Amino acid sequence: MSFYNFENTDPEAEDIHYMKLALAEAHKAIEADEIPIGAIIVSKNRIVGRGYNLTERFNDVTAHAEMQAFTSAAQTLGGKYLKDCTLYVTIEPCVMCAGASYWTQIGRIVYGAREEKRGFLSKNANLLHPKTILKGGVLADDCASLMRKFFEKKRL
Amino acid sequence: MSFYNFENTDPEAEDIHYMKLALAEAHKAIEADEIPIGAIIVSKNRIVGRGYNLTERFNDVTAHAEMQAFTSAAQTLGGKYLKDCTLYVTIEPCVMCAGASYWTQIGRIVYGAREEKRGFLSKNANLLHPKTILKGGVLADDCASLMRKFFEKKRL
Repeated sequence: MSFYNFENTDPEAEDIHYMKLALAEAHKAIEADEIPIGAIIVSKNRIVGRGYNLTERFNDVTAHAEMQAFTSAAQTLGGKYLKDCTLYVTIEPCVMCAGASYWTQIGRIVYGAREEKRGFLSKNANLLHPKTILKGGVLADDCASLMRKFFEKKRL
Repeated sequence: MSFYNFENTDPEAEDIHYMKLALAEAHKAIEADEIPIGAIIVSKNRIVGRGYNLTERFNDVTAHAEMQAFTSAAQTLGGKYLKDCTLYVTIEPCVMCAGASYWTQIGRIVYGAREEKRGFLSKNANLLHPKTILKGGVLADDCASLMRKFFEKKRL
């Protein structure tokens, strides 16, 4: 993991607060029968972007929660870069979303649960912007159980 | 490069033909004062998607040529996956676009010129879908010189 600037602190109140809002986005995905991943982007204690997975509705495999959050944050802030922002996302981002975060130069990424198979960390390569700080494991159980329940229900 | 299924053939007439169409998309980017990268997606000798870089116009760093081509191809074909398709793109894709191509399961990617710094090959990791065949160097000089001229003009 030496590629990344990992934060080694325990989950703090602020991160838990915002991850709960990302989870609320993930719940919107469930209501839309989409894979329950949610994201919000925060700049100076203000929510500037949000999104949830909409790959089915848009018939578009690139319509991930993070991509929509990046786009909406750029619109809100009126600038392309998100240097002072934190992305909160319920599940570890994939390669595409990690690559998109590189272009935004986002200051910080906080994810909930690991995604061992398709998460970008599995690639063991330096995919984030060098200035992006990474933190994982915030409300990980809540984030993971939402996914597990969704797929269990699909299998019934 | 052992991560990828590289095609080792010389550029063939068909690939050159389609790369010229991707270059035509890149020229549209120049007209819009955008970084000149163009992409088209071909399925069974039919163009099903196209795009050119629009990061400035959309104020969105994710608005790469490939991303727009993926989305438009999915709309054209009415399915999320692009297994029988080839992406032609003038410049080696970045990590985000490589990651997006994974989700599309695209059959083949043909790029023009290398992008040594921000192209996905620089990451030396397996970012494409295992079934995606990769070919580079088709009209590479034309594709690269378009970029060089654009940035030279910007510096004046």
